Amino acid sequence: MVEVFKCRSSVIKFLVLCLCIFLAAVPSVEGRIRRYKWEVKYEYKSPDCYKKLSITINGRTPGPTILAQQGDTVIVELKNSLLTENVAIHWHGIRQIGTPWFDGTEGVTQCPILPGDTFVYQFVVDRAGTYLYHAHYGMQREAGLYGSIRVSLPDGESEPFAYDYDRSILLTDWYHKSAYEQATGLSSIPFVWVGEPQSILIQGRGRFDCSLPTIESGLCNATNPECSPYVLTVVPGKTYRLRIGSLTALSALSFEIEGHNMTIVEADGHNVEPVVVKNLFIYSGETYSVLITADQDPRRNYWASAKIVSRNGNTSNGLAIFNYYPNNPRRPPPTVPPTGPTWNDSASRLAQSQAINAHAGYVVPAPRTSDRVIVLLNTQNRINGYVRWSVNNVSFHLPHTPYLIALKENLKHVFEQTPPPNGYDFANYDIYNIAKNVNATSSNSIYRLQFNTTVDIILQNANTMNPNNSETHPWHLHGHDFWVLGYGTGKFDIYNDPKKYNLVNPIMKNTVAVQPYSWTALRFRADNPGVWAFHCHIESHFYMGMGVVFEEGIDKVGKLPTSIMGCGDTKRFLRP
Amino acid sequence: MVEVFKCRSSVIKFLVLCLCIFLAAVPSVEGRIRRYKWEVKYEYKSPDCYKKLSITINGRTPGPTILAQQGDTVIVELKNSLLTENVAIHWHGIRQIGTPWFDGTEGVTQCPILPGDTFVYQFVVDRAGTYLYHAHYGMQREAGLYGSIRVSLPDGESEPFAYDYDRSILLTDWYHKSAYEQATGLSSIPFVWVGEPQSILIQGRGRFDCSLPTIESGLCNATNPECSPYVLTVVPGKTYRLRIGSLTALSALSFEIEGHNMTIVEADGHNVEPVVVKNLFIYSGETYSVLITADQDPRRNYWASAKIVSRNGNTSNGLAIFNYYPNNPRRPPPTVPPTGPTWNDSASRLAQSQAINAHAGYVVPAPRTSDRVIVLLNTQNRINGYVRWSVNNVSFHLPHTPYLIALKENLKHVFEQTPPPNGYDFANYDIYNIAKNVNATSSNSIYRLQFNTTVDIILQNANTMNPNNSETHPWHLHGHDFWVLGYGTGKFDIYNDPKKYNLVNPIMKNTVAVQPYSWTALRFRADNPGVWAFHCHIESHFYMGMGVVFEEGIDKVGKLPTSIMGCGDTKRFLRP
Repeated sequence: MVEVFKCRSSVIKFLVLCLCIFLAAVPSVEGRIRRYKWEVKYEYKSPDCYKKLSITINGRTPGPTILAQQGDTVIVELKNSLLTENVAIHWHGIRQIGTPWFDGTEGVTQCPILPGDTFVYQFVVDRAGTYLYHAHYGMQREAGLYGSIRVSLPDGESEPFAYDYDRSILLTDWYHKSAYEQATGLSSIPFVWVGEPQSILIQGRGRFDCSLPTIESGLCNATNPECSPYVLTVVPGKTYRLRIGSLTALSALSFEIEGHNMTIVEADGHNVEPVVVKNLFIYSGETYSVLITADQDPRRNYWASAKIVSRNGNTSNGLAIFNYYPNNPRRPPPTVPPTGPTWNDSASRLAQSQAINAHAGYVVPAPRTSDRVIVLLNTQNRINGYVRWSVNNVSFHLPHTPYLIALKENLKHVFEQTPPPNGYDFANYDIYNIAKNVNATSSNSIYRLQFNTTVDIILQNANTMNPNNSETHPWHLHGHDFWVLGYGTGKFDIYNDPKKYNLVNPIMKNTVAVQPYSWTALRFRADNPGVWAFHCHIESHFYMGMGVVFEEGIDKVGKLPTSIMGCGDTKRFLRP
Repeated sequence: MVEVFKCRSSVIKFLVLCLCIFLAAVPSVEGRIRRYKWEVKYEYKSPDCYKKLSITINGRTPGPTILAQQGDTVIVELKNSLLTENVAIHWHGIRQIGTPWFDGTEGVTQCPILPGDTFVYQFVVDRAGTYLYHAHYGMQREAGLYGSIRVSLPDGESEPFAYDYDRSILLTDWYHKSAYEQATGLSSIPFVWVGEPQSILIQGRGRFDCSLPTIESGLCNATNPECSPYVLTVVPGKTYRLRIGSLTALSALSFEIEGHNMTIVEADGHNVEPVVVKNLFIYSGETYSVLITADQDPRRNYWASAKIVSRNGNTSNGLAIFNYYPNNPRRPPPTVPPTGPTWNDSASRLAQSQAINAHAGYVVPAPRTSDRVIVLLNTQNRINGYVRWSVNNVSFHLPHTPYLIALKENLKHVFEQTPPPNGYDFANYDIYNIAKNVNATSSNSIYRLQFNTTVDIILQNANTMNPNNSETHPWHLHGHDFWVLGYGTGKFDIYNDPKKYNLVNPIMKNTVAVQPYSWTALRFRADNPGVWAFHCHIESHFYMGMGVVFEEGIDKVGKLPTSIMGCGDTKRFLRP
């Protein structure tokens, strides 16, 4: 009897085990639910030792990393516990196919989430890769409301590169003035520019010099554990996939690990032909995976360093510790941190961008031709005495009724219906000098694209309102990836430059930079029904008008959830 | 012919004149429309020489004074131009008879007004007097969003006192930390108290000591014209009605004008028997009219001074200049400013309150008895480690669906239905010591009053969580005036103290203070259909739970405007 029981027990254990394996296996086919409960609130944080009110998720900034597998459904229940301030969160790089209302772009795809409300974002992560999330409302991103998304391949599939461990690192810059103070200065006459950031943070940790005499006592504490450097511990001989994302407010960065080469293998969720570099240039809104092998002297630690490039500021480099196990993770490397590339070497930056091509086994063929070409001249302008940024001399502002709702529900007059210009005065505009007329107009009109057509965008950079100055602008497209067909210096030649487009193995991205006095050419398929922002990812630049919006296939958008409504003209839907 | 024409011209002129007189006269009977267009936004202001982000109305803080005549309809079109922050404005002292939805109390009578939205407040000012307006959302009032309302008598009517000129002065206290920073500290473990205000402002002007070594350079400028003292210019021999309102965040004040007596003639919109005082004690949320005759040596100027009482801080007195015309308004008085009363002389404060009675010709008879007595014990407590304020050991929090909408539209479960307690453990609670159990509970339940009944409220003060400490709390009732029946020290005796009530000539007010270790007894008629807040007017105390809400006659409330909706559970009304 006892024996029989024993036997039965073993059988049951075996069956339970089978069931577990079965349950674990099934979801990888059907897609699992990844549920997150987040509470957004203000807390005092000292990420660079200086105490500042920050917007946190579950008490943290950066917020929790979302981990999911291709095909999974991510559900984020976001409770807004800010006191008087709304919020909205964008899932950067997730195309929201079939769920354009959950793109999280206030004014474009949803009304803001009110204090006390819980908003449920629900979307499928349809493709493996490295993505981001961040606030997309006012200038809240700068207050610390951001994080990483890591989507792994389905079970049994693998990348065309090998690694032992997978790590996410978010790079940000950090201001001591609040986002309100910054925004108020930008909207003032005279214009008040907040200046360069006080710190560069690596995974939310940086270091401000607390010994400066101007700091109010008690605000800066160099021994606060919140600002001890980020430590990336590695086992000698192992290879690490570092998923590096940048969500800087302003800064373009160069990231490197002292004494170690990096191999770029992924950009914005797409596998690329491996490129070995000493330092990675990364712009706000971009993500890269690099492989790093811990193949150096294991008896010491090394510096990881993030340096501002493309602007000549005096912000100290962000530093983290690349810690060889079992060395003490707090032991500083015995060397001076790397100084990094010179700030104004845009040729090197462009060269790195141009060196990155789609992985041979993963080329998504680009259409040979496009149905429409839109040229976007990037300029700094003045409107009624206010400093603004513009494209084609139109400075963008958001409507108070989100476009997606306005278009789907046929609410006329909530935004301007005349489309914005397809280009600028190609023949006569001098991109190398301050415009003869710096005045621009302000508009909230949008580009309406024919569904399922191919659209080319030429980002054309120009001089700002300061002599001999042209800035770098990283442009991010919501709801799509685009092929990067080419880069060039000077003025884009619409007849000859397209002949040099890379149609063989162009990479696909969702964010790409246009360099000073240069152009960048993109192509995308307008095949995702919805309304999508395309804008400079520098927080202050978009706030000051540097963006456009595309609509495509609005008639194919499904029934909108009422949770995205409640603002502007949607109040007319209130029928108690 | 020419003569005829001349004659006709005269006739026409006469008729036009008649018409003008007619048009000017008619509205004073029917009530005119007083229309205001306000834009609310952040601006840098230096009201005490220290530069701080402030919330302004049309570029000003305090905002424009609303001037109207009894019976007028005030329409305020309020555009919210804050970036990510909502707003709501309360018309303090206006009873909103028939328009409870325009009381401006976020969470009680309306959803907050979203950025970009224009909300139209429309209400009748049914009674002459001195009132206030201010933000009633989060702790926004402290950011500078407030102003004065002055309602004059109908043409031909006059007050029972004479004066030559009418002036409004708003008293406030001013913090250099933002309302967010303060609120975050109050909601933190450990509790972070912002401390005493940096300045006292008289009509939006104060003076911080810019020479202090801890101030970051560029932030404080003693020569900024925004912080030159407020000047009240008077003509020798004339009598001035000063309408003094206090909207301090924290401070009880004593206001005086050097060398001049003041005669108190109005309190919270009610005429009172004249009381001559050297200094006026005024609590946050109160208004008084005082008469001051410019009867002193006219060859010099005098100090007007506002001093903090009831708290022992080190905030400098607020100073303004009482300028005898034609002396230079900037000429400082030749004397040392008055030092004012000692901070902890609560007996003098209570004596002044008790000395103020309804004007003999304007007594509104109080009901002899009440239908219900609610005793509200004021205590400081702890809930899950957080410091809170409570009444009857219940700390109040606002729901996210305003009560007015929830009750009128029968939305169950958006707030707790069990009513809060009518009193506390009278027999055993020791008001002179820290409570044996300082723990409280948090609730958003409300008191539902029988319509047209008479309600007595006893505010009972007690010791805080610090030994030998009891604070002063000014309580403000929305939608009503109440009779102030009595004050007393110690614990209210429900059997004997009511016998001492003043039922002969009690004043009516909307705000009244309860002194340390004391009680204050009020009576009001529950005759204004709506939902009304009753709370401590100290901004941080209400934020920390020191308030209750009354409902009465909800079935008599008219159709709610949809403009007050859009938040919380009202989203279920969205039917596109």
